[in-house]
Amino acid sequence: MSLLVVGTMAFDAIETPFGKTDKIIGGSATYAAYAASNFTHSIKQVSIVGEDFPEEEMKDLSDRGVELEGVEVVKGKKSFFWSGKYHLDMNTRDTLVTDLNVLADFNPVIPDSYQGAEFVMLGNVMPALQKKVIEQLKERPRLIVLDTMNFWMETAMDDLKEVLTMVDLLLVNDSEARQLAGEYSIVKAARKILSMGPKYLIIKKGEHGALLFHENNVFFAPALPLEDVFDPTGAGDTFAGGFMGHLVKTKDVSFENMKTAIIVGSALASFCVEKFGPERLKEITKQDIDTRLDEFVQLVNFDIKLV
Amino acid sequence: MSLLVVGTMAFDAIETPFGKTDKIIGGSATYAAYAASNFTHSIKQVSIVGEDFPEEEMKDLSDRGVELEGVEVVKGKKSFFWSGKYHLDMNTRDTLVTDLNVLADFNPVIPDSYQGAEFVMLGNVMPALQKKVIEQLKERPRLIVLDTMNFWMETAMDDLKEVLTMVDLLLVNDSEARQLAGEYSIVKAARKILSMGPKYLIIKKGEHGALLFHENNVFFAPALPLEDVFDPTGAGDTFAGGFMGHLVKTKDVSFENMKTAIIVGSALASFCVEKFGPERLKEITKQDIDTRLDEFVQLVNFDIKLV
Repeated sequence: MSLLVVGTMAFDAIETPFGKTDKIIGGSATYAAYAASNFTHSIKQVSIVGEDFPEEEMKDLSDRGVELEGVEVVKGKKSFFWSGKYHLDMNTRDTLVTDLNVLADFNPVIPDSYQGAEFVMLGNVMPALQKKVIEQLKERPRLIVLDTMNFWMETAMDDLKEVLTMVDLLLVNDSEARQLAGEYSIVKAARKILSMGPKYLIIKKGEHGALLFHENNVFFAPALPLEDVFDPTGAGDTFAGGFMGHLVKTKDVSFENMKTAIIVGSALASFCVEKFGPERLKEITKQDIDTRLDEFVQLVNFDIKLV
Repeated sequence: MSLLVVGTMAFDAIETPFGKTDKIIGGSATYAAYAASNFTHSIKQVSIVGEDFPEEEMKDLSDRGVELEGVEVVKGKKSFFWSGKYHLDMNTRDTLVTDLNVLADFNPVIPDSYQGAEFVMLGNVMPALQKKVIEQLKERPRLIVLDTMNFWMETAMDDLKEVLTMVDLLLVNDSEARQLAGEYSIVKAARKILSMGPKYLIIKKGEHGALLFHENNVFFAPALPLEDVFDPTGAGDTFAGGFMGHLVKTKDVSFENMKTAIIVGSALASFCVEKFGPERLKEITKQDIDTRLDEFVQLVNFDIKLV
């Protein structure tokens, strides 16, 4: 079993109420790969970077089982750069700088060695590029997961709707779900989105957890109540990577196992926010993850037999 | 085992995106009593109403085991009246009218027949009155629960802090918890509040569920994802009534049983919002409640053994 990850590998500069960084490693595919590498060492990365992207970061990824043949390195150009400042609530942020750099030329090509990947995570890039990736796959994967954002709903809704018919699971946050469906009620929005193509829908609600919808079933995973959220950048991509990693490891794409995978994704995300960038994801051990999973069990476990 | 409920019995006029009512029955003690009456028929109500409060409502309550000796009926005066309009998100609202009427003279007197109540729910009234109720109790109840709101933090913080030292459990929403503790982080706010007196703290987050804190333990109860929230008025008081009702019924005030009680409270609240006023709470059967409790089990139940 292997996991194909498509997305950005980039630099971020972040300011939060707790501190400030210069350029550090970021990007949706970076976070997803580090998270997933806790569960599988067969990750096939597709991205684009400039010649400024550090060799040692590539080596760190490679050492964790992340294949980089599909990562295009563009000589003489710079990597994608984003800079933002979070507000006190850590849910809202101002973008200070967006330098597309190499991302403007991103044209993902799937290497032959990547063919046959059973699990595909399409990070938040232009819907036309997500579609192009799917069209290059010679065998239909067992599970294709798509991430997207408001920006594409405003600028490329037709492409987005088309790619939605080609995927199994959509991953969005609550405001994106509302915008995509044109419904304020999350339950109504979910029903509408499930009629647009994906059989599964995950709606992320940040500190308020996440909901998984499938047919008439719904599952709710809480977020761990944290004393401090140090830096929320990448938490959503880490969630996605942990979710996919668990599915790849267990080779089981049932609704029941997706519930567990969401808890695993939430646990990974709870580590991600403890430090700037993906640092914390590189440090944690299986023991750390198991301990945190147990905290999730404690958090929601109740006994209804007395009623 | 009996439950003493102190709070308002009143009229509301409500406008939501789904409709509009003239004066209907409302009040924190009304909602709490209707909710709790699904679990115990030994409820001792303390409140104040005008001569306009309907006889048939009193009879409905009485028929459900709610004793009304402690409800003062003031001749020639009107009951407390509140009118509000909810925004589309149903979490925020504008108050249109607040006519205190008899509430301005509320001076709760505990009848002798109410002495010995093991469970006490102090609804959201002036902290000095909540304190006065506690001081009238000849035997220390097993559990005293206090509800309050931002308004008292702004106008009667000293009284509120004093009464907090006299109760076992505080029930507030997230913004109230933040204001009371002066901490943005919910986890830090909880720790601070637990140092102010109560051994237990419930933080309600509306559609995002509720958290129970005790020592170093935390439990999270989700809200049921609902297609439509018709009218959120009284949902918090209904939650409190269902929570207390379950504790009275099971005679168990352990942290473990409080977890179940929070789920029960959440289930009752999910009925409350389906119609205007407390109507839905009068209709539901034990079977309805059990079915909904099972939905909560399905909603959060997951299996972590595969990891």
